[in-house]
Amino acid sequence: MSEQLTIAGVQMNVAFADKEQNLKRIGDRLREAALHGAQLVVFPECAVTGYCFESFEEARGMAEPIEGPAVRRIVEMCRAADAFAVVGMIEEDGPRIFNVCVLTGPLGLLGVYRKIHLPHLGLDNFSTPGDRPFQVWKAGPVTLGMNICYDVSFPESSRAMALAGAELIVLPTNWPPGAGCLACYATNTRAMENHVYYLAANRVGEERGFRFIGQSRICEPNGETIASADETSETILYAEINPAIARNKHLVRVPGKHEIHRFRDRRPEMYGPLVEPVRD
Amino acid sequence: MSEQLTIAGVQMNVAFADKEQNLKRIGDRLREAALHGAQLVVFPECAVTGYCFESFEEARGMAEPIEGPAVRRIVEMCRAADAFAVVGMIEEDGPRIFNVCVLTGPLGLLGVYRKIHLPHLGLDNFSTPGDRPFQVWKAGPVTLGMNICYDVSFPESSRAMALAGAELIVLPTNWPPGAGCLACYATNTRAMENHVYYLAANRVGEERGFRFIGQSRICEPNGETIASADETSETILYAEINPAIARNKHLVRVPGKHEIHRFRDRRPEMYGPLVEPVRD
Repeated sequence: MSEQLTIAGVQMNVAFADKEQNLKRIGDRLREAALHGAQLVVFPECAVTGYCFESFEEARGMAEPIEGPAVRRIVEMCRAADAFAVVGMIEEDGPRIFNVCVLTGPLGLLGVYRKIHLPHLGLDNFSTPGDRPFQVWKAGPVTLGMNICYDVSFPESSRAMALAGAELIVLPTNWPPGAGCLACYATNTRAMENHVYYLAANRVGEERGFRFIGQSRICEPNGETIASADETSETILYAEINPAIARNKHLVRVPGKHEIHRFRDRRPEMYGPLVEPVRD
Repeated sequence: MSEQLTIAGVQMNVAFADKEQNLKRIGDRLREAALHGAQLVVFPECAVTGYCFESFEEARGMAEPIEGPAVRRIVEMCRAADAFAVVGMIEEDGPRIFNVCVLTGPLGLLGVYRKIHLPHLGLDNFSTPGDRPFQVWKAGPVTLGMNICYDVSFPESSRAMALAGAELIVLPTNWPPGAGCLACYATNTRAMENHVYYLAANRVGEERGFRFIGQSRICEPNGETIASADETSETILYAEINPAIARNKHLVRVPGKHEIHRFRDRRPEMYGPLVEPVRD
């Protein structure tokens, strides 16, 4: 049985603080991508809500529990499209809010990722840092890990998930201006250094004068870009991926003379604690 | 007192198994770079010896103890040029050989780095993996860390040295064909994610039909390329760097509204052991 599957990344604008409109757009794009054969469709960070909140109260007004109406509607969309989706939203958990993405499928909610690395920016000024370790989930034939935006600039994020078995890492993101280097280099590097597929779905458009820079992309395990978008268009990127390729970390150019192994060649005993020493 | 300094990366061909010719070229290039104002000059991996050895005995024939004639000559060159140098060679240590680079200055040998991550290729098939943790050294006004070639594709290498205080990471390398992604993305990503300067000095030319791909580069702490070379030319890259910029990990775009800190935003407690679980 072939493990191959088609994945899609939706580069879209998001209506600030208008969940109804955003959920309708997400449903439309999910249906469109599934009609083109996508079995997993990834949307931007905060695609349900928008990002540039200016107070905790304002952000909390857009938050809801994971077992709430937004996720129920996304699951319904997945059932209708017979596809998996990864969608960014704001989770309410008692007095706290989290910047999250959910993994949903035709049979319901599969996983939640609470953003671990928070910049001092927008929603992240008011949300609680993710309090659960990096993990991976099975979505049909692929094992995937979820990160959000700023996480990509910390190599430990991808490393932890790849070591846990991720064949594909998805990154709902709201890359701001100045993150050009991230878009251009870091996603490719994460794919290469872990030998995994990497899909980054960014926003376009503006919120309160703050611009998002598109450049969504899908990278293959050797680090090359398979599909990419420009800085402003609403579009959907597609790629057919083969998880077995990502699982094989042993790369042979000339048998016996030029080979590497992305995991076995690691030397964790030489890395030390990877924690910054306390300085005065 | 200004901390600024000029660094140089020498992209050059290397004569296979001809130490005399290579040391002469290294001396010429060091003098030339110093005349252009460079205070630290970085040469490729195995610049003294060549790389494509086909047996342990052949490689051992080019190895010598660190306190041997090659390093004595390089120190003499540094004294004459009043500059620091990082040069790749093969170290003999009893029955073992190591792929190393040495850091030398006008006053003598400052440090040795034994390559930690070994691909199954060339010299590395016959050398012993580096057995000392990553560390950093002071060379004039800058604190630098040394990696060699394949190390750049392991993010832990740069992370360990940046956390230990490296403001500049230098990478003597022998990038082979197929390493294009490394040259294009990984050095920039290492600079960005650690907010350090990164200098990769690669070879050009061929050995026994094996081609090296040039594309040496110097990246600044935001991840952008400052200077870069093509795939075939012998050339010297220069950049003026300011270590204080690399020390400041707190990056402010809009005070109080858009700030990040490359180190303080890390969440080591969430990364787990970063060691692959044993699988059958």
